[in-house]
Amino acid sequence: MASTVNPPRGMRDFLPAEKAQRERVLGVIRGSYRAHGFDEIETPVMEDSSRLHAGLGGDNEKLAFAVMKRGLTPEKLQAASDALDLADLGMRFDLTVPLARFYATHRAELPKVFRSIQMAPVWRAERPQKGRYRQFVQCDIDIMGEAGPSAEIELITATAATLDALGVQGCTIRVNDRRLLTSSLSILGFPAKEHEAVLITVDKLDKLGADGVIAELRERAFPDAPVAALAEFLQRPAPETTPEFSADAIRAALPAGVTEEVILELAAIGHAVEAGRGDSGSLIEFDPWLVRGMGYYTGAIFEIAHPSLGYSLGGGGRYDGMIGRFLGSDVPAVGFSLGFERLVDLVDLGAATDDDQVALVYDADVEAATLVRLQATLIKDGKRVRLEARPKKLPQLLDQLRDAGFTSFATVRAENVSIDNLEFKPLGG
Amino acid sequence: MASTVNPPRGMRDFLPAEKAQRERVLGVIRGSYRAHGFDEIETPVMEDSSRLHAGLGGDNEKLAFAVMKRGLTPEKLQAASDALDLADLGMRFDLTVPLARFYATHRAELPKVFRSIQMAPVWRAERPQKGRYRQFVQCDIDIMGEAGPSAEIELITATAATLDALGVQGCTIRVNDRRLLTSSLSILGFPAKEHEAVLITVDKLDKLGADGVIAELRERAFPDAPVAALAEFLQRPAPETTPEFSADAIRAALPAGVTEEVILELAAIGHAVEAGRGDSGSLIEFDPWLVRGMGYYTGAIFEIAHPSLGYSLGGGGRYDGMIGRFLGSDVPAVGFSLGFERLVDLVDLGAATDDDQVALVYDADVEAATLVRLQATLIKDGKRVRLEARPKKLPQLLDQLRDAGFTSFATVRAENVSIDNLEFKPLGG
Repeated sequence: MASTVNPPRGMRDFLPAEKAQRERVLGVIRGSYRAHGFDEIETPVMEDSSRLHAGLGGDNEKLAFAVMKRGLTPEKLQAASDALDLADLGMRFDLTVPLARFYATHRAELPKVFRSIQMAPVWRAERPQKGRYRQFVQCDIDIMGEAGPSAEIELITATAATLDALGVQGCTIRVNDRRLLTSSLSILGFPAKEHEAVLITVDKLDKLGADGVIAELRERAFPDAPVAALAEFLQRPAPETTPEFSADAIRAALPAGVTEEVILELAAIGHAVEAGRGDSGSLIEFDPWLVRGMGYYTGAIFEIAHPSLGYSLGGGGRYDGMIGRFLGSDVPAVGFSLGFERLVDLVDLGAATDDDQVALVYDADVEAATLVRLQATLIKDGKRVRLEARPKKLPQLLDQLRDAGFTSFATVRAENVSIDNLEFKPLGG
Repeated sequence: MASTVNPPRGMRDFLPAEKAQRERVLGVIRGSYRAHGFDEIETPVMEDSSRLHAGLGGDNEKLAFAVMKRGLTPEKLQAASDALDLADLGMRFDLTVPLARFYATHRAELPKVFRSIQMAPVWRAERPQKGRYRQFVQCDIDIMGEAGPSAEIELITATAATLDALGVQGCTIRVNDRRLLTSSLSILGFPAKEHEAVLITVDKLDKLGADGVIAELRERAFPDAPVAALAEFLQRPAPETTPEFSADAIRAALPAGVTEEVILELAAIGHAVEAGRGDSGSLIEFDPWLVRGMGYYTGAIFEIAHPSLGYSLGGGGRYDGMIGRFLGSDVPAVGFSLGFERLVDLVDLGAATDDDQVALVYDADVEAATLVRLQATLIKDGKRVRLEARPKKLPQLLDQLRDAGFTSFATVRAENVSIDNLEFKPLGG
């Protein structure tokens, strides 16, 4: 008995049925985003280490697989004090850092407002666990070069339409703005330098509840007065808000005095997205305590929630400062990333119907030339054709073919080989 | 002025037009191979180092990018005597080694005769030069579990049909069999242990000519008698052969006494492929001195030649011994790999016609909700729709849109926003 042979830990093979489902879901996402005017691009899976470790990837930077320099001599190995001394390349851990680098490289060749699609794997050297992989696919759309809220409106609209196209029911896109968060914290009395730290705990509101968040903030020794003000605010009776995503509803959910301009902008985003959806149903909601982990967000932020899942299906936001880090001059940018691996499990596109899949089961004495000629004729007719030598146990083969999506089969015998003589029988389950 | 920001050396970004062309070509290849009954699979981009360096990849093994272990301490770095001591993973350098590993992992879940498609990038740490990249895509089909020539016939037939589907004209598929090569060398007097070494020089026949090959063999100090016999054989007048790929033609091109069984098998492959192509035209030819570099080939070998190119567009062969290295028991296997990067430059699929691509150029005072509603309506109607704020220089934008494949545009003004009022004007070049 051979020893077990597996793919690398935390990485997966995809068998034909899984691969076909993944390609179909990617096809729907690509088609929907393209229809909304976005253009697909591709970057290499590796970037120069210096760019991956430029401080733009947050905690994910630490998870970048390092790719070794070539031609390392024993002397160079001995001289290294840090693993990164030996690595000049790394695997991308997200699609945002490569996009910022891509935009800096190609800006002159791109339209002034550039709408990109990226659907590609990323790698993270995480401890493998259920539902967390070391290679997984992300589907990102981004708009670069548009400072106004039309970019957020287009991104959320396209993402919502894509979820519809995939038939994923019951999603909500929660929306907030980093500026509302920091404005709220200032009003409650937290000094600006503590905002990032406070938000790490506020981000756990879903899991810990208001009491848990307040307890953790006290434990982390933030000043008493603002924590007490936050506690009072979080524990107040829920405001009466109108159901739609309006400036009144946003204002009512926040401490009095939050920047009015941001409230109006966010309300305009919500209004346009809802109005654009028409009959497709409401889908976005304002979440005053949505944080999103990445420090690079500068404006609106969004996250897709699904009632059956304890985690988000995707998210994004505005990150106006990042491209400037590579380009030297700032370029406004907003992105929305779909968590493909989570999504693909929720999607049921039904059986593939575009293939008329048939098998020719042939006797050993049928000439090969005849078989390939029959196959070519059927393919020209739009069919997918598998040639199978007739095995001893025919029913097993027929079961396998049916499970693999083939719909009918014909037996080919040496004395009976014209296309008109083929009798197709259904492989129905 | 910002410093230049580029992708890693030898690796490429793909802008929208290139990416779209690549995806279309991949789509045609996938569709053609699927129609011929093959199933697409996917493996991770990395494999465990021990598998990549198991001696199956020939010279390419040395070109594998090494991926570092996580959590390397300075002590572990110091203790390393070889770079591979620090790397537990590597980037795949071809799709054949991962396929052999995949088959060993999943054999129980796969059909007895398994026809795989892989279309995916591979990486080689080569010195970058024109037309040679460090990340590039290969498109492989393989048949595992079929020992007879029907596997070769299916592979060559599917590949030829795929070249037709791509509209690549003028290709020839040159075919040989490793067993004919070694049988010929034995008859000419070369001892078996020198065959591999002799074939390295014979492989250069296209470049060096017969005289050059003989000179190199003399220089490499192979025994005089067999080299002289080879010289005489190569310099004899070309045999009169029938134009088709027949046993007579194969026999006539080789030293007398070559294994008859292999000649008949190869002739049967040639006959079936030609007959199966029907009106599509002849395409394969026997090449008695085709070698293919990889040592793992055990039977038929093939290579795609194109008159306009000095290198092959793809190739493959039978490698019956390889899967056994991972699985512990031998499984017959044949593969055919298309060089996607070379192919994509030759393919002209014409302009994409499946998209009706329109732009809505809107004034600043048009409501965003109106725009996304118009967009949604047009998308439902099967269009691809880009929203563009009206710029100061409209003609520039219209030129860009046309270059990007958009076919018409309509102006949207605040006073004129119903779908029926849109007047589409062509963006014709």
